[in-house]
Amino acid sequence: MKVVSFVRNGKSSYGVVVNDGIVDMGAKLGSKYPDLVAVLKAGALAEVEAAAKGAAADLPYEGTTLLPVIPNPGKIVCVGVNYDEHRREMGREPPGHPTIFVRFPESQVAHNQPLLKPAESDKLDYEAELAVIIGKRGYKVSEDDAFSIVAGYACYNDGSVRDWQTHTGQFTPGKNFNATGGFGPWMVTADEIPDAQKLAIQSRLNGQVMQSSNTDLMTFNIRKIIKYVTTFTPLEPGDVIATGTPGGVGTKRNPPVYMKDGDIIEIEIEKVGLLRNPVKNG
Amino acid sequence: MKVVSFVRNGKSSYGVVVNDGIVDMGAKLGSKYPDLVAVLKAGALAEVEAAAKGAAADLPYEGTTLLPVIPNPGKIVCVGVNYDEHRREMGREPPGHPTIFVRFPESQVAHNQPLLKPAESDKLDYEAELAVIIGKRGYKVSEDDAFSIVAGYACYNDGSVRDWQTHTGQFTPGKNFNATGGFGPWMVTADEIPDAQKLAIQSRLNGQVMQSSNTDLMTFNIRKIIKYVTTFTPLEPGDVIATGTPGGVGTKRNPPVYMKDGDIIEIEIEKVGLLRNPVKNG
Repeated sequence: MKVVSFVRNGKSSYGVVVNDGIVDMGAKLGSKYPDLVAVLKAGALAEVEAAAKGAAADLPYEGTTLLPVIPNPGKIVCVGVNYDEHRREMGREPPGHPTIFVRFPESQVAHNQPLLKPAESDKLDYEAELAVIIGKRGYKVSEDDAFSIVAGYACYNDGSVRDWQTHTGQFTPGKNFNATGGFGPWMVTADEIPDAQKLAIQSRLNGQVMQSSNTDLMTFNIRKIIKYVTTFTPLEPGDVIATGTPGGVGTKRNPPVYMKDGDIIEIEIEKVGLLRNPVKNG
Repeated sequence: MKVVSFVRNGKSSYGVVVNDGIVDMGAKLGSKYPDLVAVLKAGALAEVEAAAKGAAADLPYEGTTLLPVIPNPGKIVCVGVNYDEHRREMGREPPGHPTIFVRFPESQVAHNQPLLKPAESDKLDYEAELAVIIGKRGYKVSEDDAFSIVAGYACYNDGSVRDWQTHTGQFTPGKNFNATGGFGPWMVTADEIPDAQKLAIQSRLNGQVMQSSNTDLMTFNIRKIIKYVTTFTPLEPGDVIATGTPGGVGTKRNPPVYMKDGDIIEIEIEKVGLLRNPVKNG
């Protein structure tokens, strides 16, 4: 099942994507579950699926204004430098622990919404990432149990303002400019992804492939990330983990490539979907 | 006015501290403003003050279970290494930008609630900090306007698990263990603090002074912090800024001092209040 958050008549809702459009589940179940986080907290994805089954689309997919898959996650936990290809070819030892930083929900935009290049910088970079969406509370979760708390997956563009990311040792400012992170288009539920650790992942800037890798090259796989994070903090339904980006980011190119007004950036992940955002001056 | 969040009959509420106790404002205004964040979002602190005026206390201050001042802040923005005394005596240039990291609300406890030393580490350290609580949305706020978005102040203990803080370059894990941050006892509204940049600040471990400084020694003062943060992200009512800690933390002592089961850690800030937490094994 593909689940989206969207706007209808100025009101936020959520729904299920079917062939020809979106079944508005907010209209059907909104009094019980006002948003996707509420659906996840109630463990009600199966109820949503059953209610959507055989229903006609209430609105078209194209032309509907989507919201970030989870518009209001409690936490967005991001993993830095988490792909192996460069580390391996350099013969380096893997780091001992995942690199964890945080994005605020305010930094996110939906599929098709513009990413905003801030006036304060010309170094807005893309980062293709697999987003893991939490469906069940987890604290001190073992690697074996890690996937039991996962509701589904989405594409994430962990857009980064590189000069502000390196103002100090902490990444926070460069990872949290308003409207610099893409999250969409939908959540694919976990039952449709037999192996999240074997998915081709790509970014394309104006059609040109910039990153092309596979989630099996993560330094810390999803099981290890969930175990590590839930050692210190509980993960709650609706929380999001952005699992890190492969090589090929713009800032490491020679010469560097940054996103600018008029660009189109796409993140595509096998079996998950295609997230497309135009870039505009903010 | 001193404002608290607390639990009454198993339900969370908020109120105003008067001489002999707490006026339960949740009971009086809860249908309009279910919590302190809602009060702040509505700009209704004056209405709360008027409604509390002359009212008798509904419950005693001592013995009431407090909650973190803001139990559900949208963002907790923390400033690292932000006091000058050591930098000055070393003759070093100030850093160019504030060091910004993030705490999750799940890591907080209220006044009198135990801070939990995690089983995974013996390096739980204290950090006395002035917390600035945002009362009005601010984005791209100038230094001149910075205090216009501040609702009030509280004591913060930015409890830090030092070995997990340095697993990688990012502080997130060491700053987010469950129940390691103290936030209380109350918010003192900004009208009672004529100069937040001139307040004595102290931490005491089992009665012994460990940190003793003044907020006028911040490297980046509150105006500069608010300007910097709101350049990249909006601050919203109920958001919290922990403004950094002075020298004297346990990990820099010789030999190092860490908090352990049975300890009492106190943070006291002039005109703001006294935050006391016992330490227990988590």
